[in-house]
This record gives sequence, structure tokens and C-alpha cells, in this order.
Amino acid sequence: LSHKKFFQYLERTQAAAVIVGERLEDCNLVQLVHPEPYWAFAKTAQMFVQEDYGTPFISDQAYISEDAVLGENCVVHPRVHIMAGAKIGAGCVFFPGVYVGKDVEIGEGTVLRANVVIETHSVIGDRCLIHAGSVIGADGFGFAPGREGNAKIPQTAGVKIGNDVEMGANCTIDRGALEDTVIGDGSKFDSQVHVAHGCSVGAHSMICGQSAMGGSSKLGERCIIGGGSSVKDHVEHGDGVILGGHSASTKDIPKSGVYIGFPAQPQEEWRKVTAYIRSLPRLVERLKKLENK
Amino acid sequence: LSHKKFFQYLERTQAAAVIVGERLEDCNLVQLVHPEPYWAFAKTAQMFVQEDYGTPFISDQAYISEDAVLGENCVVHPRVHIMAGAKIGAGCVFFPGVYVGKDVEIGEGTVLRANVVIETHSVIGDRCLIHAGSVIGADGFGFAPGREGNAKIPQTAGVKIGNDVEMGANCTIDRGALEDTVIGDGSKFDSQVHVAHGCSVGAHSMICGQSAMGGSSKLGERCIIGGGSSVKDHVEHGDGVILGGHSASTKDIPKSGVYIGFPAQPQEEWRKVTAYIRSLPRLVERLKKLENK
Amino acid sequence: LSHKKFFQYLERTQAAAVIVGERLEDCNLVQLVHPEPYWAFAKTAQMFVQEDYGTPFISDQAYISEDAVLGENCVVHPRVHIMAGAKIGAGCVFFPGVYVGKDVEIGEGTVLRANVVIETHSVIGDRCLIHAGSVIGADGFGFAPGREGNAKIPQTAGVKIGNDVEMGANCTIDRGALEDTVIGDGSKFDSQVHVAHGCSVGAHSMICGQSAMGGSSKLGERCIIGGGSSVKDHVEHGDGVILGGHSASTKDIPKSGVYIGFPAQPQEEWRKVTAYIRSLPRLVERLKKLENK
Repeated sequence: LSHKKFFQYLERTQAAAVIVGERLEDCNLVQLVHPEPYWAFAKTAQMFVQEDYGTPFISDQAYISEDAVLGENCVVHPRVHIMAGAKIGAGCVFFPGVYVGKDVEIGEGTVLRANVVIETHSVIGDRCLIHAGSVIGADGFGFAPGREGNAKIPQTAGVKIGNDVEMGANCTIDRGALEDTVIGDGSKFDSQVHVAHGCSVGAHSMICGQSAMGGSSKLGERCIIGGGSSVKDHVEHGDGVILGGHSASTKDIPKSGVYIGFPAQPQEEWRKVTAYIRSLPRLVERLKKLENK
Repeated sequence: LSHKKFFQYLERTQAAAVIVGERLEDCNLVQLVHPEPYWAFAKTAQMFVQEDYGTPFISDQAYISEDAVLGENCVVHPRVHIMAGAKIGAGCVFFPGVYVGKDVEIGEGTVLRANVVIETHSVIGDRCLIHAGSVIGADGFGFAPGREGNAKIPQTAGVKIGNDVEMGANCTIDRGALEDTVIGDGSKFDSQVHVAHGCSVGAHSMICGQSAMGGSSKLGERCIIGGGSSVKDHVEHGDGVILGGHSASTKDIPKSGVYIGFPAQPQEEWRKVTAYIRSLPRLVERLKKLENK
Repeated sequence: LSHKKFFQYLERTQAAAVIVGERLEDCNLVQLVHPEPYWAFAKTAQMFVQEDYGTPFISDQAYISEDAVLGENCVVHPRVHIMAGAKIGAGCVFFPGVYVGKDVEIGEGTVLRANVVIETHSVIGDRCLIHAGSVIGADGFGFAPGREGNAKIPQTAGVKIGNDVEMGANCTIDRGALEDTVIGDGSKFDSQVHVAHGCSVGAHSMICGQSAMGGSSKLGERCIIGGGSSVKDHVEHGDGVILGGHSASTKDIPKSGVYIGFPAQPQEEWRKVTAYIRSLPRLVERLKKLENK
């Protein structure tokens, strides 16, 4: 019961128990009281829905470099590729088509779903879940234009992903040129998110679908980026900054709050200005009237 | 001959016949009359261009679970992975690198191109074509924020795709949390389209490149979404609603028509307001003049 | 030393030499003078960072059609798939999971990273680098709507990519219906870029992350598209046109310069209009005052 609009279902529900933020008076159901009832629901639901990855095994049709180190109890499906120098923690699960490049380090209990690609020198923490088709550690987009064409700036740094990070399908997290791309603990990305080279994302931040962070941009902790939005190159968001959907920040936003539009501005201002824009035809009428006087 | 601008080519064409909407008087070519000439052209062209998938075969280097059921005349290339409980109709074609998760159902004559991933519990209809790298049925983006971090809400529902659906390359269609993500018959998606968890798309709708539907949003039948656009979470479009490119709808749009901008508004209004915005410098001049009087 | 803001580091640097645009007077370091110092830095850095693809070999666990032609010194990893009629130049490198369709032609020294898909009839030049998960040559998005549904227009043309082209991860470049999709020499794309059917991109152009070109749109030479932007179907940009981030061009832009917004307009105009929009509340105040007089 995370919102009062659900109160009406209390009488009809056939549930044996209900998770509530505060104890309810007129309610005969078993009540589980937690100050964050939606979060508590999620944690409870997880107990009932545990994906079964099967008995640990390493397929003899996987291609594992001789000097790669795998922890205990891993599940490695056929046609997984693990290159030289990889260090993989215990209990990892690699689905078919996964490619793990040279000198990659992956913590314990991390799950890479089908066709995920982890490029050279990436470091991934414990208990991460990367959905199918995502690519971690491809070269960042760095070129110096010149009369003879665009010269590639070698991308020599890596990607460092913390613990408990989840990424949706077909995301791309590029490696840095000189500075690592860093994703903080507990961050969660939707599908088709792009993080460019040299970015950093603070702990527990969330990025919604088809949003992107431009090169060397930074998010603080517990930030949110709505869907279809972007943070400009080198722009920094402070802790708790929420950028709405279909928006783009073009300057640093140090103060927490909700920002919308292009260029992004505080939500209240954006709403006001949007209303004024819609009233422009009427404003022009009023101006004409005055001119005619 | 779908548009009058092509009339000029009638004299010069070396074609043996021409498809027209209405019979032409001054034309010596063989005329095929159809009320929808462009559609009729497409149907005719299909007769001449049929992709040859080769003689049906199932590679002994594909990994097919013992209890998976395959219909007759399928083409299954090497390094295709079909997990337990899958039910595959007759005449399906699976290119290399395809992964089909547990308990997936696929109808007859559906083609999955290279490296497509179909996750657990997805249902796909007949005669669908999914282009390379697309991921169907990855977990939806559902997390409950809390002081201890973002708790994952298990995504337990599936993806249900109708018949004759085509999807471009590197699309992502996420599975629902409690409600299925549903794609109606005959819908067509361009490349890099993202459909979030719990969405529904009505029959014969089209979504252009790099567009997205936010969680639980809904499209009616024969809707169109232009490129680089998005539908906000929980927003619904009625039948025949067309959202232009680079636009985002933030509220329900029940009435058919063309809508543009952010927030999306009827095309005519958007054009008018856009013109007014461009005239703002002149408006301010006029205001100054009045003030100086 | 590509920017004067870096002058301050000259005294502290431990570098043995510095690349400068013009010879510096007060500097004891070895100076390498080049009119384009940033470009020269990139070229120099490349000498020190050469990726080692290992000794050439062709895995016996790759699936190579008997009539495919491979040049000398290629690296072909296990579970690479090369279909009938392919012609591959010398020194190419194909990472695991790569799929090369029928009758594809690839020049010399081109590198396809893990899980890249090249569909039928694509032609790729010399020394290209395509990052993981990108899909070249999937069907363009062409459908004729009709009362019975959307009829597919067969996409029979191809994709032609020049020399020295680099593409980021999870890009999609679609094949044309009747006209090829053409990417000019030396063009560079970031991750998640989408180029639709029948587009052409001039030499040495750059497209940033999550940007898209609509069907049959055209870029001249040395164009730039910022991140999260799009070029509308059939729109053409002349040589040297720069479209900013989060923007969309809706009409031809023949003249070089920087353009921003939706619809895109010259940067200076966009800045002015954006400032005017923000001042709308004050303008309305001024109008009210006049009305009250």
C-alpha cells in the first residue's frame, strides 16, 4: 500500500497480508509495517521470484583462455568466450554468446545475459546483472579533426562498474581515453542507455531508456535521468538532481530538484514558460489592440 | 504511380506496366488499377523479391534442449541456442547467434536474424521478422528507491507479440512486471526502438527509429510514432494518433490526428506557436515602441 | 598544447617533449611544431598504443562457407560465421560472434569486434573498425500502409561504407530500398548511431551518440551531428554543417555553420530566442502595465 489511491482495494483484496507505511485502524488483514512500503514490497517479492540458473557447470564448448581464473560455482554456457587474463569471481552466470575480453575482472555472483560483450580492461563488481546485447568498454568517441581527416585518440583507460549495478538490454558504456568511466554501486540503467567515455555516475542513480551521458559528464549520488534525455559533455549534476524525460542539461546543475526541457530548467519555471509559450497567440492579440489605440 | 509528381516519368519509363489508383486516359502502358497503388506496388514487389533461406536443416552445432519442440521445415543455423520448454512452429528460420530462452513460444514462419535474443516466457506469433541484435523480453525497468538503495521489482510477466510483426535491428522490447507487454498484429518497428514493460501497441502501428514507449504507455491501432520521439509512462494514444519526429507526448491523446513538439500538441498549433516564438524579437521591439510613447 | 588553458601545465609537466602549434619562446622542453597540434597528438599517441590482435589464424570452429574468399593474415575467432560469396581482404580481424552475410565484400585490415552483424550485399572498405553489437545492412524501414495492413517494400539495395570508417557499439546502418546507403571515407560514428535506408554521409563526417539520420537524408563532407539529435527524412545538410545536440533539422541546411534546436536554426538565433522565451513572464508583466495605463 504505497499510495492512498490503492486504499479502495483493501476491502476486496484476497491477499493474506498487506505491507503498509503506517499501521491502519480499520483493517483485518495481517499488516507488515515498513516506513518504505514500496521498497519493502520489492524486497519481499524478490523472495518469491528467484531466477534458477541451474546447477553450476562450465560447458566444454565455451572458449576459455588457459590463464583465465574462474571462481567456484559459475555457470558458463556453450559459446561463451573468455579471453586471456580474465579474473571471474565465484557464482557468476554467463549466458550463450557472451564475450569477455582480455584482462577483464568480474566480481562474485554477476550475471551476463546472452550476447553481452565486455571489452578489455573493464572491471565489474559483485552481484551485477547486465541484460542481453549490452556492450561494456568499447572505445570512447575521441577524434581530433584535421585537414587530412579525423585522427583517432587512443582510448586507453577502462570502465569500472561497482556492485549491485543493473543494466538493461543493448546499453553501451564506453571506456575512457585517459580517465576511467565509472559507474557507482547500486546504479540502475534501463535499456539502450549510453554512457560515453570518462563519465562518472554516483551511487544509486537511475537512468531511464534511450538516455545518454555525453563525454566526461558526471552524475552525483541518487540522481535520475528520465527517458530520451541527455547530459551534455563535461556537464555535472549534483546529488539528487532529477532530469525529466526528453530533456537535455547544457550547464552544471549543482542543486538537487527536478529539471526539464532543452536547455533544462527547474520544473516550475519550465511549466510556467511552457504555458506562456502556448499563450503567445493571445499575447500578440493584446499587443495589437494596444497598438491600434 | 502513387503521387502526381511522378506523372512526368510516365512517358520515359521502360516499364511494361504501371500500377495506378485510377485508370489513366492518355497512357499506352498496361495499367494495373488498385485503390491503394503504393500498397499494391509493395505487394507486387514482394512477389519478385523473396529471400531464399535455403533448404530446411537443423545444424548439429546448434544447442537445442531435449524437450524443446520444433515444427517441420525449420532452418536452424549453427550456434543457435534453444532452451528448455520452447515451442517453435513450422518453417521458422533462426540465424547464427540466436538465443531462445526457457518456455518461449514462436509461431510458424517467423525469422530471427543473427544474434537476436528472445528471453524467457516471450510469445511471438506467425510470420514475424526480427532483425539482428534485437532483444525481446529482457527485464522491465522497475525499482523501488529506498534509503538502502534501489530494490528490484521482479519482472514476472512476459512479452506477447502478434502475427506479421517486423522489428528493426537492435530493438529492445521489455517484459512486464505484472502485466504483459503486448505488440499487436501487423505492427512494424524501425531499428533501435524501445518498448518498456507493460506497454501495449495496437494492430498495424508503426514506430520509427530510436523512438521509445515509456512504462505502461499504450498505442491504439494504426498509430505512428516519428523518429527520435517518446511516449511518456502511462500515457495513452487513441487509434490513428500520429506523433511527429523528435517529439514527446506527456498526456493522453485520445483523438486521431498529427501531434508534434514537447509537450506534444496538434500540428497546426505547434506550427503557429513555433512561428510566434521566432517572431519574439520583433514582438519585443513592438512592445518597446509602445512603452516609449 | 592545443589550447591556451593548458599553458599553466608547461612548467610542471614531466613530459620529455610537447607538441605545439607555434614555437614557444620561454620553454625548455623539446618542441614538436605542427599546425594542428591536437591532431598531431592523436597521430603520435597512436604510435604508442597499437592493439595487438595476435598471430593471424583462422579458427576451425569458425563457420566459413566454402566459396568465401579470405585474404592473407586474417584473424578469425571461433564462432564467426562467414556466408557464401563473401570476399574478405587481407589482414581483417573478426572477433567471436561476428556474422557476415551472403555476398558481403570487406576491404583490407578491417576489424569487426564481437557480435557485429554484416547483412547481405554490404560493402565495407579498408581499415574500418566496427565496435561490438553493431548491425550493418538490416532491412530499411519501408512499408506502404493500406486497409489490409502495412505492406513491406522489399529493401533490395545495399550499404556501402568507405575506407577508415569507425563505428561505435550497437549502431545500426540500414540497407536501402532502391538506392544504397552510403557512408563516406573517414567518417566516425559514436555508439548507438542509426542511419536509415538510402542516406548518404559525406567524407570525414562525425555523428555523436544516439543520433539518427532519417530515410534518404544526406550529410555533406566534414559535417557533425551532436548527441541525441536527428536529421529528418529527405533533409540534406551541406558541407561543414554542424547540428548541435538534442536538436533536429526539418529542412535542408545548405550553408555551413552551427545549428541548434527543434526545428534547427542558426546557433545565434537559437540563443537569442531561448533568452526571449525565458523572459516571457517579464514581457507579459510589461504588457499588463501598458494595458492598465
